[in-house]
Amino acid sequence: MPELLSNFIGGQWVAGQGAGTALFDPVLGTEIARVDATGLDLQAGFAFAREVGGPALRALTYRERGALLAAVGKVLQTHRDAYYEISTANSGTVKNDTAVDVDGGIYTLGTYAKMGDTLGDRRFLLDGEPARLGKEPLFQSQHVLTPTRGVALFINAFNFPSWGLWEKAAPALLAGVPVIIKPATATAWLTQRMVQDVVNAGILPVGALSVVCGSSAGLMDALQPFDVVSFTGSAETAAVIRSHPAVTQHSVRVNIEADSVNSALLLPGEGADSPAVELLVKEVAREMTQKSGQKCTAIRRVLVPEALYTTVAQAVAARLAKTTVGNPRNEVVRMGALVNRAQLATVREGLQRLQTQTEVLHDGSTQALVDADPAVACCVGPTLLGTRNAAGSDAAHLVHDTEVFGPVATLVPYRDAAHALRLIRRGQGSLVASLYGTDAGALAATALELADSHGRVHIISPDVANQHTGHGNVMPQSLHGGPGRAGGGEELGGARALNFYHRRSALQASTEVLAAL
Amino acid sequence: MPELLSNFIGGQWVAGQGAGTALFDPVLGTEIARVDATGLDLQAGFAFAREVGGPALRALTYRERGALLAAVGKVLQTHRDAYYEISTANSGTVKNDTAVDVDGGIYTLGTYAKMGDTLGDRRFLLDGEPARLGKEPLFQSQHVLTPTRGVALFINAFNFPSWGLWEKAAPALLAGVPVIIKPATATAWLTQRMVQDVVNAGILPVGALSVVCGSSAGLMDALQPFDVVSFTGSAETAAVIRSHPAVTQHSVRVNIEADSVNSALLLPGEGADSPAVELLVKEVAREMTQKSGQKCTAIRRVLVPEALYTTVAQAVAARLAKTTVGNPRNEVVRMGALVNRAQLATVREGLQRLQTQTEVLHDGSTQALVDADPAVACCVGPTLLGTRNAAGSDAAHLVHDTEVFGPVATLVPYRDAAHALRLIRRGQGSLVASLYGTDAGALAATALELADSHGRVHIISPDVANQHTGHGNVMPQSLHGGPGRAGGGEELGGARALNFYHRRSALQASTEVLAAL
Repeated sequence: MPELLSNFIGGQWVAGQGAGTALFDPVLGTEIARVDATGLDLQAGFAFAREVGGPALRALTYRERGALLAAVGKVLQTHRDAYYEISTANSGTVKNDTAVDVDGGIYTLGTYAKMGDTLGDRRFLLDGEPARLGKEPLFQSQHVLTPTRGVALFINAFNFPSWGLWEKAAPALLAGVPVIIKPATATAWLTQRMVQDVVNAGILPVGALSVVCGSSAGLMDALQPFDVVSFTGSAETAAVIRSHPAVTQHSVRVNIEADSVNSALLLPGEGADSPAVELLVKEVAREMTQKSGQKCTAIRRVLVPEALYTTVAQAVAARLAKTTVGNPRNEVVRMGALVNRAQLATVREGLQRLQTQTEVLHDGSTQALVDADPAVACCVGPTLLGTRNAAGSDAAHLVHDTEVFGPVATLVPYRDAAHALRLIRRGQGSLVASLYGTDAGALAATALELADSHGRVHIISPDVANQHTGHGNVMPQSLHGGPGRAGGGEELGGARALNFYHRRSALQASTEVLAAL
Repeated sequence: MPELLSNFIGGQWVAGQGAGTALFDPVLGTEIARVDATGLDLQAGFAFAREVGGPALRALTYRERGALLAAVGKVLQTHRDAYYEISTANSGTVKNDTAVDVDGGIYTLGTYAKMGDTLGDRRFLLDGEPARLGKEPLFQSQHVLTPTRGVALFINAFNFPSWGLWEKAAPALLAGVPVIIKPATATAWLTQRMVQDVVNAGILPVGALSVVCGSSAGLMDALQPFDVVSFTGSAETAAVIRSHPAVTQHSVRVNIEADSVNSALLLPGEGADSPAVELLVKEVAREMTQKSGQKCTAIRRVLVPEALYTTVAQAVAARLAKTTVGNPRNEVVRMGALVNRAQLATVREGLQRLQTQTEVLHDGSTQALVDADPAVACCVGPTLLGTRNAAGSDAAHLVHDTEVFGPVATLVPYRDAAHALRLIRRGQGSLVASLYGTDAGALAATALELADSHGRVHIISPDVANQHTGHGNVMPQSLHGGPGRAGGGEELGGARALNFYHRRSALQASTEVLAAL
């Protein structure tokens, strides 16, 4: 019988009282662990975090909390090999893809650890300069940011059990807000193990970090007005969270990161021999195959001038054809598995749906697997679809609406720049768009046109060919989130991430009182 | 038959097709106008604002849009006398109270008009400095704020038909976002007339400003992902708005300003003869009676050291006893009417409920009215309640939960500083708290303790006795909004108000591309 992973809440390790839900190896099909949260006293656990963890964190300065994050990073670094093994077993990822999750999480922690030093020996943040409230400067308004006196609940997605935890927990803890993490069941093991290692190391104040594995039932009910909740996952679940009385009646602050049909755009005016074409092709193939396309930021639509449709199709297909797929334990394998059979089925269904409005430019669905049994392993090769011509791009509404969460993208030819922008906007708000071109002015102008409907615009010009950080790679310095169907959330963005965990307040007072803050 | 006020939407004046709802003079009881929105094509009207008004506004720079706001302010100034007459007739307010609404609106417009000059000849805003994304400075992240390409829908409250419009419309229009205003029916006349004057003056681009008077049915259904909605009013309606599919499914951005049981706190350590006591007494009496207590920011709970309960009770009661109440057309009247019979009944009910847990320290409920028929006029004198002692303050849960939206406040004695803070926090998040004291250090420390649960802390020390801007007066320089039951919204706060109407985006690019922005 595989291990039943314990929950850590209310300052104690507590096993669920039910039979639990199994976690599987998506390549071998074997059961590797179980999770269960039945019978937990969530109300008491949340109260403990709020009343014990919160005050302990808020008693520290930003610099001191930054030092805790650095210590957490060190602990994780110590156990890094174990995390890689868990990722291979539970997520079916090759080492390069595990790195995005595990090392990406540790890197993000490190970034916020350093920020603690910058913010210094304070317990609240000044927000802007004092503003006069009359002709005389004696009575002024000074805005401040103080940590919210609640908990931060994270309901996370299966694709980033490490990074998804730390990219949220780092700014929350730095802000002085205790964290309760509910990992996605399918890949909960890595999250649970990391929390366990950090708890065992005794770094954080008691109540600062809790983990609940299994069902999310009751979690939202435990929230109170000064708590915050951050969700990453499907638009359907996002709507359920937003409709919960905690949010609608008690103003619990919500951050949502949901579906996104991200675009890559080769700017008009680039010829077939432009270096921008090669940069696009390379990035598209990389985004399609990294983590088997299971990234919310991955490229789903590839917009190219109609005249370059065939050129780009052939070049991307040629790269995809070289992608070996299968068991990540075999060193020749470049792309591992999807997370489970349910996701494999969903990807296949999505592919079928898209194919009703597209042609197949490269078919990975029947690709032979390396070291893996196709009847068992959740592996599938990458597939490139295309809408044939500009009229097809307009007609293929599914392409602009459907996020197939796997190694699938669609080539979308456009007529002119205005047409391309119109097509991209049919995504109704996305996390990221990337632009490829050689004309700095045109790239800048296009970025500004897309800025309002995208949380991030990633611009790849030949001068940064070897330095850009990747279309789908989320850097802690930049905003992560997007408007509309992407959920409307804002994460990261350097110090901006702290805003979600602070309350802004205007202090109106005399010069003498403001000086005493 | 009183005038049926027309709606302005889709660039046209359109009368509702139903019989409409009557607006009354709350002092005389006469019907003065009707509103109706039956049969309006809201989908088309919203689309017009989005597709015609939005692009026209966005084509202008911040400086140019600021100049439009200044011109709007001038038009309103021209018609100021008419607005005062409408306020007297429809809101039953004395001149000083009308000023808070009418002149407060014009002042706020002026503040954002000037901000246009500061923001300059640009069409988007830089958000922070570029941040390196690697060791080399060649590839960096620059955050920008661009106007959202949707409409701003305002569903407003009855108590500020002028200020409530302009404090929201000014930052929206300055940001380049078209406005659709739905005033509260009871006092829709002033809002409608102001929009009419501005439209007739031909200042704003077509589609930039619309007004819908009457039912709000269908308004939320007309919203799309890049639209925003701002609501001021009851917590119940706020929950309905938050639960609407536009919000839960399409990530329409929401700002809510709801109930708030605001506090005034006399700090511990002040003797009966402290100037802080006099400042508190004066401010409490003013807040209770200004606009007949119909301000979301008004003082509802007055916290004083137990030893000063009787002193403060008598001093406030003495001031309230001098307040003449009745027909605002009579010059001796200092306090006019509540907005309508329904509100009068609600206030009486609330008073009755609070009296089950409090004693009456000053009873205004049977006060004689000046020039007004008590059977007709929606007038009621100010009433001060009290919880007797510190134990009573703990026991009287209704006092901390109930916002009676009229000239009513409760005196709440406390044991010590920690007790006072605990009692205030039982408001579950408020718009504003005011502090009264003579020790700058203690005032600053207390302000920081209350900052996370209040959008604003207003600190009155003797040195600013003649300069402070008032507990309940919302200055455009300071944040307006509060966490928890106050709705969790953020309005005003100087340039911070523009954030709600912009989308933040990270542009990751080479130095050359960023320089071309």
